[in-house]
Amino acid sequence: MTEHDIHRSRTTVGVVGGGPAGLMLSHLLQRQGIESVVIDTRTRETIETTQRAGILEAGSVRLLTDTGVSDRVLRDGSRHEGIELRFGGEGHRIDFDALVGEAVWLYPQTDVFIDLADARERDGGTVHFGVTDPAVAGVISALPTMSFTDAAGQRHEVSCDYLVGADGSRSMCRGEVPDDVGVHHFREYPFAWFGIMTQAPMSAPELIYAHSPHGFALISQRSEVLQRMYFQCDPDEDPTAWSDERVWTELDRRTALEGFSLAKGPITEKVVLRFRSFVLEPMRHGNLFLAGDAAHTVPPTGAKGLNLALMDVKVLAEVLGRAVNDGETAALDEYSPRALERVWKAQHFSYWMSTMLHTLPGEFAAFDAARQVGELTSLVQSESGRRYLAEGYTGWPEHT
Amino acid sequence: MTEHDIHRSRTTVGVVGGGPAGLMLSHLLQRQGIESVVIDTRTRETIETTQRAGILEAGSVRLLTDTGVSDRVLRDGSRHEGIELRFGGEGHRIDFDALVGEAVWLYPQTDVFIDLADARERDGGTVHFGVTDPAVAGVISALPTMSFTDAAGQRHEVSCDYLVGADGSRSMCRGEVPDDVGVHHFREYPFAWFGIMTQAPMSAPELIYAHSPHGFALISQRSEVLQRMYFQCDPDEDPTAWSDERVWTELDRRTALEGFSLAKGPITEKVVLRFRSFVLEPMRHGNLFLAGDAAHTVPPTGAKGLNLALMDVKVLAEVLGRAVNDGETAALDEYSPRALERVWKAQHFSYWMSTMLHTLPGEFAAFDAARQVGELTSLVQSESGRRYLAEGYTGWPEHT
Repeated sequence: MTEHDIHRSRTTVGVVGGGPAGLMLSHLLQRQGIESVVIDTRTRETIETTQRAGILEAGSVRLLTDTGVSDRVLRDGSRHEGIELRFGGEGHRIDFDALVGEAVWLYPQTDVFIDLADARERDGGTVHFGVTDPAVAGVISALPTMSFTDAAGQRHEVSCDYLVGADGSRSMCRGEVPDDVGVHHFREYPFAWFGIMTQAPMSAPELIYAHSPHGFALISQRSEVLQRMYFQCDPDEDPTAWSDERVWTELDRRTALEGFSLAKGPITEKVVLRFRSFVLEPMRHGNLFLAGDAAHTVPPTGAKGLNLALMDVKVLAEVLGRAVNDGETAALDEYSPRALERVWKAQHFSYWMSTMLHTLPGEFAAFDAARQVGELTSLVQSESGRRYLAEGYTGWPEHT
Repeated sequence: MTEHDIHRSRTTVGVVGGGPAGLMLSHLLQRQGIESVVIDTRTRETIETTQRAGILEAGSVRLLTDTGVSDRVLRDGSRHEGIELRFGGEGHRIDFDALVGEAVWLYPQTDVFIDLADARERDGGTVHFGVTDPAVAGVISALPTMSFTDAAGQRHEVSCDYLVGADGSRSMCRGEVPDDVGVHHFREYPFAWFGIMTQAPMSAPELIYAHSPHGFALISQRSEVLQRMYFQCDPDEDPTAWSDERVWTELDRRTALEGFSLAKGPITEKVVLRFRSFVLEPMRHGNLFLAGDAAHTVPPTGAKGLNLALMDVKVLAEVLGRAVNDGETAALDEYSPRALERVWKAQHFSYWMSTMLHTLPGEFAAFDAARQVGELTSLVQSESGRRYLAEGYTGWPEHT
């Protein structure tokens, strides 16, 4: 390829990553009249078929519906007004609607992506899926660049005022932040989730979070005919070593309750999900802004990953709008602290849900199991406790 | 000593341990017309001068005042309607009175003991302090015995319908429970408290719980001229290795806040308090009932030890009353589960306060410190969160 083969262009915001965070940002920027170019190495088809999280906070749903992405979530999603905490042989409903007047929505991340990709297409947004050899440069200069080869083989170099790294947990953009800049916060957990997908009817209308002497289990839903279930396992567990029968035995004993039985069917997927927490602080380096999994990852308990990503770009779109349209470049300084406040609240929420419900290994496991029942008892007996949990689960209001 | 030297007698309830739990039980039993004999190896003077906890839950105060022990706590104690949580360079008040309509009282355990000992004397209760060679026998028989030599040298053997072990964390009575009966739950913590007493005025009107990058500190009060302060230290710390200056430097940096300074004075005591949690489950073995520290110990964060002991004997007095006066012996089966529900809630509360506020050692210390700030931020921003904390701190209502 020679120099004159490169297609050079100019945009305001270059966005690396065409998942929900990148596409939502691009959508929110266009609503403010701000140009952007989004790239992703994955094809649209790949993203559409990669199963991810499925619980949307109330604020995430409002972001989709109120900004004109789509209201399909209201039709095809399922409104969940509570969850069940199951422990000590009893089920206790946390009634989100009664406690905080909010709910969450069961709506797979793939559908969020489809709605956003459709909206970008509908609104004439520039999104390149399936690019190769992406690169960014000059992130601390006044005019960073984003280059890539598009799906048709054309090389591009886009000069941008601002670059956004919304390129997931293995972020290329994050590599532009030198190791000695900022703090890389990291944590591992001594457990993982064994996840299955099963062709079965729903076992319950809402999610069941079960604490048991045998470990944690989560019964969730995907559709009328397809269900997601998880149980705590060792991080080094080999999913192929588990027969269907062994999986069901484990799920049964962890969710045991008088009058309850799991609806079972063929198991079409078995995976092991490791738990890790990560935060890069600050979330900005020069004119590079990191958003979503590129800046932070949370353990799956509490379903905060996708929601955090959407809340990141909500703040980012606002401050970019003020910087670009009003010349208020100081607004950009607000991004990292405002986003991080929510990130750390969510990190703790995920840690809390994880350590309250999972069997904790180690010398004091028996004590901790009994203490967890003490905590769960305190929580369900207290309206304040239930409300505090509901606030976190449905998503805190943005604190300003 | 020959056989005829032994003074034999009969009572309904033999109580080993004349601290607050044992004396309160004896007081509550007498109010129901039930005889008891209390023994303690310590002299009254020794107990009166052993500094212990100083925070009474609202329910503990009501137990003292409403059952006619004494209302001195209302005159000499200090009503605290809140605490301060200090972190990230800011102070946040948890307003118990506004949140739950309750308060706690700063009133040293030695004063609780004096009030109870005076009340037992006033009401003609049988209490033997300073006994030697105490022993219990036949705890699973219909007529257990409690024997001891009183301060005057007379040997006693008291036959009892019921025996109560309220003899503290090194309980002799607990030794009557065979190792293979029940579950001994135990937990250690990777930190301790360095506690000082200082002759200084109060630094603040209410307790300050401080989270800092240097570790936890607690500023509490004792009187107008004497203060108790603590800071997190290594469990193996040697208090004699700390000069006063070094102590003040540590307390200063952990409580640093604009406009705040610690009131200092001569340090009259330096001690290291280790953290441990213990629960023996069940709290009954035959006709032996364990209460207070004999059955469970909690770490000091949250000040639950004395309060739990008083709530144990409140339940125990009630069920003994029903068994003795109404022949309802099945009521005795309620003691352990009812008391333990509160014990485990308190174990978790103490664990929560400890792990939310102390620097956690280990590989992920930096992550956890930032996550703790995330939790504290969630908590103080949420009225429900603050109320949930206030409910635990001021003492949960008895759940029936």
